Amino acid sequence: MKKTLTVAVVGATGAVGREMLNSLHNRKFPATTIRAFASARSAGSRIPFGDAELTVEELKEDVFTDIDLALFSTGEATSLQFAPHAVNAGCVVVDNSAAWRMDEHCPLVVPEVNACHLAAHMGIIANPNCSTIQMLVALKPLHDATAIKRIVVSTYQAVSGTGQKGIEELERQVRDLFNGREPENSVYPYRIAFNVLPHIDVFLKNGYTKEEMKMVNETVKIFGDPSVKVTATCVRAPVFYGHAESVNVETAKKITAKDARIMLSQAPGLMVYDNPREKMYPMPAYVAGEDPVFVGRIREDESIENGLNMWIVADNVRKGAALNAVQIAEELLRRDLIRVPGTNVFLQ
Amino acid sequence: MKKTLTVAVVGATGAVGREMLNSLHNRKFPATTIRAFASARSAGSRIPFGDAELTVEELKEDVFTDIDLALFSTGEATSLQFAPHAVNAGCVVVDNSAAWRMDEHCPLVVPEVNACHLAAHMGIIANPNCSTIQMLVALKPLHDATAIKRIVVSTYQAVSGTGQKGIEELERQVRDLFNGREPENSVYPYRIAFNVLPHIDVFLKNGYTKEEMKMVNETVKIFGDPSVKVTATCVRAPVFYGHAESVNVETAKKITAKDARIMLSQAPGLMVYDNPREKMYPMPAYVAGEDPVFVGRIREDESIENGLNMWIVADNVRKGAALNAVQIAEELLRRDLIRVPGTNVFLQ
Repeated sequence: MKKTLTVAVVGATGAVGREMLNSLHNRKFPATTIRAFASARSAGSRIPFGDAELTVEELKEDVFTDIDLALFSTGEATSLQFAPHAVNAGCVVVDNSAAWRMDEHCPLVVPEVNACHLAAHMGIIANPNCSTIQMLVALKPLHDATAIKRIVVSTYQAVSGTGQKGIEELERQVRDLFNGREPENSVYPYRIAFNVLPHIDVFLKNGYTKEEMKMVNETVKIFGDPSVKVTATCVRAPVFYGHAESVNVETAKKITAKDARIMLSQAPGLMVYDNPREKMYPMPAYVAGEDPVFVGRIREDESIENGLNMWIVADNVRKGAALNAVQIAEELLRRDLIRVPGTNVFLQ
Repeated sequence: MKKTLTVAVVGATGAVGREMLNSLHNRKFPATTIRAFASARSAGSRIPFGDAELTVEELKEDVFTDIDLALFSTGEATSLQFAPHAVNAGCVVVDNSAAWRMDEHCPLVVPEVNACHLAAHMGIIANPNCSTIQMLVALKPLHDATAIKRIVVSTYQAVSGTGQKGIEELERQVRDLFNGREPENSVYPYRIAFNVLPHIDVFLKNGYTKEEMKMVNETVKIFGDPSVKVTATCVRAPVFYGHAESVNVETAKKITAKDARIMLSQAPGLMVYDNPREKMYPMPAYVAGEDPVFVGRIREDESIENGLNMWIVADNVRKGAALNAVQIAEELLRRDLIRVPGTNVFLQ
């Protein structure tokens, strides 16, 4: 049995990459070596890992020979190019981009929901979209209790979902507005400061954005249940960290708000924070830096027979991205799925 | 026939009161005299009306004798106290508070939707909640075409909905955060800067907020159709002006997105602003100061047979409050409904 475990974070200098390193360190991931990769531009720079530092290495196609597990937090194009070479070198990839999510050879995993799908992996496991992850952690206990028939979701998504550049644009625009300067926008198509944008990712032919269709299609794949219907409206809000979601669920059988609260409070990865009388409900500004998915405002929807409304909030950089990827890695280890034999179906 | 028309704005110094004066002036409302009332604290101060100024008078129960029409923009308690005295003096009241909205003697009117209800008025006409107004202006053409069965709405509401104090709290909190000071909150229960609050108005026993139940109950009353089911989640966003709504509608028969766009673009008070390819969709920061209700992101909801998603945005202080009240006043004049005989059912 192999005694060493070398883990790479690819795209280590971005907001999610840094948080991946944090999560690996904080959760004491049993790696014997951690390596950090980024583009040539960042190569040679130092990046924190706990109290220590790592030297960032340049990402090349042939770097994966001695790496057992790579967490990718790169753009789709980089992931499409490099992940197959990693797999070819015997490395297992957990990829945070959208590149592989709908590929039939790649499990799409939220550990609290469908860790069982990992067994079928062929080298690449996809990390779902941030908005999908937090919604499904919260809805899984309900779907187990009685099939979810339909989900209507509207999101309130933080600028950190766009990475460091989104954070900087909101901050710069607010400073400009408060100092009498005309704010400029380069990251978002319109001003995000003191505004909301019903536009995340690109528009598709059917009028939905790619972000909205991710929530539709990823939900079906993760639940493994095409009978779950989803319709989504994804909106960027002038919030730095934390995605919120207003979620309306129709179930096959009645679940009372009280029963839902009990089910959810016993489920993994979830924190029910729901007491209107005491003004207790989750909010993005207060979940930043927290691991769980928070649920509040659970109430019966009086407009249909079997419906619930709920308000789901999580740190989009943590559970929505970095933490979920590290949790996938932990499950791979626990299930002894890091070394996968067989041909590389990802290299053409 | 009476040749004079004296109009009063009650609560004239607030954000909505000032906008009522603006709307009366800009729309050349045919008043012969305009008077402004507020609490004793503001009495004697000067307030703009076009290029002129009005002297604010103190609101008392006996001031309404020579007033034909009063637009109230006060709190519920003030409205409950003073509106009956106005009616008793022969004055017709258009009230912006929630005090009279569900009173069976008071029509609740959005002129584009149910101006016909005005004929039955007994002295007080209620102006609906801001979120309800903009939603129903947009949904009326669809409800006319084929009955709306169910509405699932999530809101993104501006701080100006709370009045000037909401605007000041957001501004102060942003300045504090950007200057390294701990932001304090007094208007909202939690920080609103860079945050969203799923809490508008007070919580009711059923777990919904009063704001959410306003959207449910006012919709039924205005449409005059108890078969329309509504479920709402109302959320305060860190936006100064402009409410946005993500609205999911289920109709009795199929309406394509294309047909909906045509119907809506021909309806009064509406502006269809919907071309994803050109990144055209309405946003709060860009509708401030505009009269119409803007609709974009119109698309078929693929999760049910007959469903549509849409994104509805309006200036909450204008169409959501002041403008709608002035439009009601215009309809009352047009229909010769300013002088109403009969006993005062509002004074106990």
